[in-house]
Amino acid sequence: MVNIAVMGHGVVGSGVAEILLSHADSISKKAKKQINIKHILDLRDFDGLSYSDKFTKDFRKIADDDEVLVVAEVMGGINPAYDYVKECLLKGKSVVTSNKELVATKGAELLKIAQDNNVNFLFEASVGGGIPVLRPMAQCMAANEMTEIFGILNGTTNFILTKMVKENLSFETALKMAQDLGYAERNPDADVLGHDACRKICILASLGFGKHVYPEQVKATGITEITLEDVDYADKLGYVIKLIGHCAKLSSDKIAASVYPALVPRDNMLSGVNDVYNAVVVKGDATDDVMFYGKGAGKLPTASAVVADIIDCVKHLQTRKYLFWEDGCKDYVEAQENVPTRLYVRLSKTDNSVVSQIKALFGDETAILNNTVANEIVFITAKQVEKELTNKIQKLQNCKVEAILHAID
Amino acid sequence: MVNIAVMGHGVVGSGVAEILLSHADSISKKAKKQINIKHILDLRDFDGLSYSDKFTKDFRKIADDDEVLVVAEVMGGINPAYDYVKECLLKGKSVVTSNKELVATKGAELLKIAQDNNVNFLFEASVGGGIPVLRPMAQCMAANEMTEIFGILNGTTNFILTKMVKENLSFETALKMAQDLGYAERNPDADVLGHDACRKICILASLGFGKHVYPEQVKATGITEITLEDVDYADKLGYVIKLIGHCAKLSSDKIAASVYPALVPRDNMLSGVNDVYNAVVVKGDATDDVMFYGKGAGKLPTASAVVADIIDCVKHLQTRKYLFWEDGCKDYVEAQENVPTRLYVRLSKTDNSVVSQIKALFGDETAILNNTVANEIVFITAKQVEKELTNKIQKLQNCKVEAILHAID
Repeated sequence: MVNIAVMGHGVVGSGVAEILLSHADSISKKAKKQINIKHILDLRDFDGLSYSDKFTKDFRKIADDDEVLVVAEVMGGINPAYDYVKECLLKGKSVVTSNKELVATKGAELLKIAQDNNVNFLFEASVGGGIPVLRPMAQCMAANEMTEIFGILNGTTNFILTKMVKENLSFETALKMAQDLGYAERNPDADVLGHDACRKICILASLGFGKHVYPEQVKATGITEITLEDVDYADKLGYVIKLIGHCAKLSSDKIAASVYPALVPRDNMLSGVNDVYNAVVVKGDATDDVMFYGKGAGKLPTASAVVADIIDCVKHLQTRKYLFWEDGCKDYVEAQENVPTRLYVRLSKTDNSVVSQIKALFGDETAILNNTVANEIVFITAKQVEKELTNKIQKLQNCKVEAILHAID
Repeated sequence: MVNIAVMGHGVVGSGVAEILLSHADSISKKAKKQINIKHILDLRDFDGLSYSDKFTKDFRKIADDDEVLVVAEVMGGINPAYDYVKECLLKGKSVVTSNKELVATKGAELLKIAQDNNVNFLFEASVGGGIPVLRPMAQCMAANEMTEIFGILNGTTNFILTKMVKENLSFETALKMAQDLGYAERNPDADVLGHDACRKICILASLGFGKHVYPEQVKATGITEITLEDVDYADKLGYVIKLIGHCAKLSSDKIAASVYPALVPRDNMLSGVNDVYNAVVVKGDATDDVMFYGKGAGKLPTASAVVADIIDCVKHLQTRKYLFWEDGCKDYVEAQENVPTRLYVRLSKTDNSVVSQIKALFGDETAILNNTVANEIVFITAKQVEKELTNKIQKLQNCKVEAILHAID
C-alpha cells in the first residue's frame, strides 16, 4: 500500500478523491499497489463525506509525514502551492499537479529539485485537461525532434468563438452564455485575454524544445477585440477564427512562442474543434503532424489525468520518468515581430486604388475580398516576417486599418 | 550501454536503424543509456551501409547472445516472427514489435510470457503507426474505464475513399492511384477487405477492455462494394463514407467489435480525417471522447514508434510497464447482428408506396432521400439492434435493396 496526500478539495481535488475511491480495484491493479489517500488539505470543512476523517488544514501534517510518498497539488495559483510543492519534493515525495500557472512559472526549478531528490514531478493535467499530451510527447514521440507545436488550448475562448461563428452571437453575449454555463469565471480575464493559453504554450514549448519558456517572454493576445464582421469575412474567405497557441523552432537557436486569434482554413483539422474542446498538434521530424483532441477541462477529465500521474508515481517510486527541461534564458524567445507569419487585414474608407496597392505590396496571390457596399477591403497575406508585413500595411494609402489578425495554413 | 537487435531490415527496420543512428545523442539522453544495435537479422545482403557489419542471417546469433537485452521485431507476418519473439521473451529479452498480425493473433500469449519472464513486450507501432495511441490509453487514461473505441485505422482505404469522395474517382481508379503512389500493395486485399483494420481493432479492444479479441471473432467488411452512387447520396444527406473499426462494451459481459464502411456525419471530427491519415477515438468514463490523429503508416512515423518502445524497454530493464490483457474466450464477442447500430439503405425500382412503408417501419424521424429521376430511395435509420433493422428491411415491398451500409452519429 502507498499513502498519498491531496492538497486542495475544489473541483479537481474532489474529482481526484472520487475517482481514486470509485475505481480503487482497477487502479490498484494498474499501479500494482493499493493507493490510500491519507490526508486531504483544505482550509474549508467537508463534513458528511465518506472520507471526511482525512481532512486537515495543516500542511505540516503532510510535509512531515514520511509515510506519504506521493502528493497531488490541485489547489491552483502560485502561493502557497509553490512553497508546498517545493518542500514535498525536497523531502523526497513525488508530486503531481494540474496547476498550469505553477508549471509555467516554476517548472524548470521544480523539475531540477525533483531530479536532485530522485523523485517524480508530473503534470499531465496542466495542459489539455484529460487529453493525453505531455506524456505521449515525452515518451511515444521520444525518437522525434519536435519542430512545431500549436493548437486550441483554452476551452472557454473556444466555446465563445464557436458561438460567434456558428450562431452569430457577439463576444459579449457569448461570454455571458459561457459564464451562465459555468465555462467562464465571473472575472474571465485569464481566459479571454489569453493568459491561460499562454501558460499552456509555455509548458508545451518547454517540454518540446527542452528549455523553459516563461509567460512574460510570450506575447499573448486574447479574443476581446474579435468582431462579428471579422468572423463573417473569415467565413467568406473559407476560414474560421480560433485562439491559437503556437511555438516553433527557428533557424537560429531561438524559438517562436505566442498566443493570438487566427484565421484557420476550413480544411485544417483545427477548424472543426468546437465548443469546449481542445486540440494540440505536435510536429515531429519522424511522425510529421500528430494531433491530440478532447475536452480540455472539467472536473472528471482533469482529475483522471491527475490520478493517472499518481498511478505512474506509485509505479516509479524508485525510478524517474523522463520528463525534464533546462532553465530558459533571456533571449531564447524571438520577438514576435521577427517571426514569419500570415496576417489578415481589414481596411475601411477604401477607394479603388487600394486593391492595386495591396497587390503591388503583397503580391498577386494575396487573397483579397472587396466589399464595395460597406466600403471595406480584407486580405490575407502570404507568410513573411511579421514586421515586414506591418511595415507594408503602414504604406497603404486612402484607407484605415480596422483589424489585423493572424492566419495559419 | 545496452545492446539491442533488430529483426528485419525492410521499410520499418531500416527506418529504426536510421533513427537510432541519426538521433543517437538525444535518444541516449532520454534512455539514460547508450543504445547499441549489435545485430540486424535479414536474409538479404545489405552491403555498403555504414552498419553493414551488423547483419546476420542466423536468428541464433541473437537468441543465444546474452548481451542482447532488447529485440525489435519488424519482419511482419506470423512465421517465423512468432517463434522468434517467443524465444526472445523466454530468454529474458524485452521485445518491441510493429507487427499487428502477430499482436492480434498471439498478443495474450506473448504478454503472459513477457510477464512470467519479467520483461516487456511493447507494440505501440502496431496501431496508428507513429500516432501515440496504446501507451496513452494504458497510462494517461489509466484512471478511466473505457466504454467505446473506434476510428479510421487504415490509411490505404482512407486514401481511396477520400479520392472517391473528393474527386469522384471510382474505387478501381482510386485503388490504382494508391498502388502507383506506393500506399497500396500490388495485392491490396489485406487493406481493402478490412483485414488490416480488423487486426488493429482487435488490439485496441484487447487493451481497452482487458481480454483478447481474435480476428476470427470480428466481422470485417471492406470497401470493395462502395460505389460513387452511395458516396453521392451520403454527401446529399450530409455524410462522408469512411472505413470504421469499432468496438464497445455491451450491457452484457460481452463486447461488440467489427469493421465496416460507415456514413460519418460531417460535423463528426472523423469526417475530416482524409488521405492516409488515421484517427482513433477513445471514450473513457472520466475523459469522455479523446482523439488521436496522424499518419497511420510510413517508414519514419512507424519506425519512430518502434524506437520509442525500445527507449522505454531500455529504461525499464528491471521493471515491467503496465500493458496487459487476459486471454479471450469463445463467446466474448457478440454476433454483429445482435449489436445496436444505424443502417443506410439504398433501394431501386421503387414506387410511391415505399416512402410511407419506410416511415411506418422505421419511424417518422428516419432521414429519407427520394430520387424520383433514378427511381431510387435511400434512407438512414435510427439506432436499433442490427437484426431487427434487417428484418424490417426485408419487409419492404415494391423495391429492391441495392446497398446497405452502416452509419454513425
